[in-house]
Amino acid sequence: MPITDPSAALEGDGATALRLDRAHVFHSWSAQAHLAPLALAGGSGCHVWDHDGRTWLDLSSQLVNVNIGHQHPRVVAAIQEQAAVLATIAPATANLTRGRAAQAVVRHAPPGFSKVFFTNGGADANENAIRMARLHTGRDKVVSHYRSYHGNTGAAVVATGDWRRVPNEYARGHVHVFGPYAYRSEFWSTSPEQESERALQHLAHVIAAEGPDSVAAILLESVPGTAGVLVPPPGYLAGVREIADRYGIVLILDEVMAGFGRTGTWFAFEQHGVVPDLVTFAKGVNSGYVPAGGVLISDAVAATFDDRVFPGGLTYSGHPLAMAAVVATIEAMEDELVVENAAAVGRTVIGPGLADLAARHAAVGEVRGTGVFWAVELVSDPVTRAPLPPATMAAIKAGLLARDVLPFVQDNRVHVVPPCIISPDEAREGLAVLDAVLTAVLEPSGSTT
Amino acid sequence: MPITDPSAALEGDGATALRLDRAHVFHSWSAQAHLAPLALAGGSGCHVWDHDGRTWLDLSSQLVNVNIGHQHPRVVAAIQEQAAVLATIAPATANLTRGRAAQAVVRHAPPGFSKVFFTNGGADANENAIRMARLHTGRDKVVSHYRSYHGNTGAAVVATGDWRRVPNEYARGHVHVFGPYAYRSEFWSTSPEQESERALQHLAHVIAAEGPDSVAAILLESVPGTAGVLVPPPGYLAGVREIADRYGIVLILDEVMAGFGRTGTWFAFEQHGVVPDLVTFAKGVNSGYVPAGGVLISDAVAATFDDRVFPGGLTYSGHPLAMAAVVATIEAMEDELVVENAAAVGRTVIGPGLADLAARHAAVGEVRGTGVFWAVELVSDPVTRAPLPPATMAAIKAGLLARDVLPFVQDNRVHVVPPCIISPDEAREGLAVLDAVLTAVLEPSGSTT
Ligand SMILES: Cc1ncc(COP(=O)(O)O)c(C=O)c1O
Ligand SMILES: Cc1ncc(COP(=O)(O)O)c(C=O)c1O
Repeated sequence: MPITDPSAALEGDGATALRLDRAHVFHSWSAQAHLAPLALAGGSGCHVWDHDGRTWLDLSSQLVNVNIGHQHPRVVAAIQEQAAVLATIAPATANLTRGRAAQAVVRHAPPGFSKVFFTNGGADANENAIRMARLHTGRDKVVSHYRSYHGNTGAAVVATGDWRRVPNEYARGHVHVFGPYAYRSEFWSTSPEQESERALQHLAHVIAAEGPDSVAAILLESVPGTAGVLVPPPGYLAGVREIADRYGIVLILDEVMAGFGRTGTWFAFEQHGVVPDLVTFAKGVNSGYVPAGGVLISDAVAATFDDRVFPGGLTYSGHPLAMAAVVATIEAMEDELVVENAAAVGRTVIGPGLADLAARHAAVGEVRGTGVFWAVELVSDPVTRAPLPPATMAAIKAGLLARDVLPFVQDNRVHVVPPCIISPDEAREGLAVLDAVLTAVLEPSGSTT
Repeated sequence: MPITDPSAALEGDGATALRLDRAHVFHSWSAQAHLAPLALAGGSGCHVWDHDGRTWLDLSSQLVNVNIGHQHPRVVAAIQEQAAVLATIAPATANLTRGRAAQAVVRHAPPGFSKVFFTNGGADANENAIRMARLHTGRDKVVSHYRSYHGNTGAAVVATGDWRRVPNEYARGHVHVFGPYAYRSEFWSTSPEQESERALQHLAHVIAAEGPDSVAAILLESVPGTAGVLVPPPGYLAGVREIADRYGIVLILDEVMAGFGRTGTWFAFEQHGVVPDLVTFAKGVNSGYVPAGGVLISDAVAATFDDRVFPGGLTYSGHPLAMAAVVATIEAMEDELVVENAAAVGRTVIGPGLADLAARHAAVGEVRGTGVFWAVELVSDPVTRAPLPPATMAAIKAGLLARDVLPFVQDNRVHVVPPCIISPDEAREGLAVLDAVLTAVLEPSGSTT
């Protein structure tokens, strides 16, 4: 690419990247005057590097999207080949690559799902799933969890439960409930089973109070991700399915973060014995190499729109370049047993490794997860479970970066969410660094519990 | 790409594309059981072709996005090169390609704009512009036109004025007004100037009645596109700017369809002597080769978020692959004078050609446009201006396709919206086919008026 800025020739690419970023790029979820971003130049597998060749082990998968790792050659080649033939085409056409991508997604769906509506990302996947549910039921309200994130657009952000909803509450018809979270139970439970049972009772009570006939959808992350990798306790999702069925409510499971191998299965809900009516996805479907998301639609909901116009759409629905990346990503994940790897590394390395970390650091209140989807919840007091304060979390984040690990730090948690292709050795290396940083920041004297 | 479907080997690619599409792809804005899509396989410049090599002249630019034409070699190469280096990276990082893309967009902005927030498309660009306006003003309501389209997500679709809003009205804080449309005036006007004046009075009255202190933003397409290429009459946009200033309302101009050369200037508002506070864009910014959109932010609005968190964001904001396409598209358009070409072909070929068409066909009620952004409005009666009925419009669309022209047909209009790179000869060829089809469908006896 030509250097279009004359001053750029006088500085390194890293410096140019930073200067242009601070001058011209407005950042997500941030106060703009207080940013010191890392300038990243490239990556491969589980590693990324800057313009000076400094390398980090990526335990974040960026925004938990690079499930297949950085720069997978087969996906890169598929993008390049599709770019050479046809980068873009209108969604009203039929396109071979798009058809193959839909087929590849459907291949991993439960029986009774044959159609996919493609979007650009997770937010508009949820927008369109909510639209389908409302029109399918003729009802209005959407029930979702307080501890959740569903995207930044109109309905998606108001379905979101976390702080990001609060300054954005301009949509109607959204109701929030508490989901299960045994470590910080809303329900005074003393076991995971009780947590499920009581969370289900709470959900049923809210729906009864709202009027079941007014509820179009229950929208949940199968495993709430950004909220803390809150793997549902036994029976919860099955109980939600039962409540939805009882009242003719559409069950939408948001697999944007949890889907496509993250939890060690293609979809997270497979581990909970439930089948939703709509599945929303993005991120892992093509590891974000080209923006894409979508809704996997049960035949019953799809049939609603056989003879009736579906009133949703977008210019880049089923974009050929994004679709080429979907086909290549899914095929490579199948051929290289990437999902199986995520399950195995989670079971044999990350799970045991984090349990060991929890046993040795008093500040680790809880570790939880599955596959390559884990949270380490850090507390200043194991009895009150008071979260570690922001300054300490910032020190932990800085410590990880200083030791060449790219972390995903959220509130009082470190999420361990590497690419699904991570090797046992890379996972061990990452956990060893986390161990060392927790020691350095929290037990600087060298004492462990 | 490997053929993953065993039956695919037995049929041609075009047949496979159709079969997979009907089996697995859920389409935008459609009843799913009633689709017969064209299977397109490739393209170049102003042409696209199917799997059998049949070629169409693309007068639609797909969804009015391929401003630089199909498969521009420089944009294709930039995508391939970026794919080889770093396809995706989180928006919280700094990235050289992203910085250059923002710089390239800002290069064409009016003075007083230095920052860009990137999104995946037009809908989320409008979502985020509305968010900025609401937080900047501390107000709620968004005033937009009935004759408009702003995207399919929560706030964007309720800001939309056309039929697509109606089944989706789940957001609050939206108010609609009629904009100028001299050919079908809402205001009983008899001249374009009067249409402007009266439309402005209507807007001012609605804002007064809503309470000016409750209005965060006026959101308008600079030139309403899908609604019929309604080029604002003299003074309208300047008058809107004045009303916005009077009440401290943020003026958002949606340049998703009108921007990046479509009207013969980089932004359409340049032709109307106004500067908005926020500009939303998508489509032409990189011709849709990789999904991208964004908000170009005036320094005054940007400053609101210097020390205050901007509560919006998305996984693929400033996606490197999309950004590489932005840089290459804008640079190629600059170097190859693509915008100047759009202006010249509009002025010397399409404008006069359509005027001639209007003079010779009684069914042409009005032609209007600028650059490569034109609408031919067809009526069954030039006095009552009754729209041509859907069946006749369908026959016209079929006639154009049969004569190897890909049209953009909307309601009772044929939009003539080719790539900005169209040559005078290609434009003449397209108009000649339109002429012949109008004759064949509307004056089959051979008689013209
Ligand atoms: C569970 C979940 N849903 C939806 C989204 C929104 O996806 P996007 O950022 O692509 O709009 C995210 C993003 O982090 C997510 O984690
Ligand atoms: C003026 C305008 N705004 C917004 C949009 C929405 O853009 P997208 O389909 O990329 O969400 C469109 C799409 O046609 C448009 O024409």
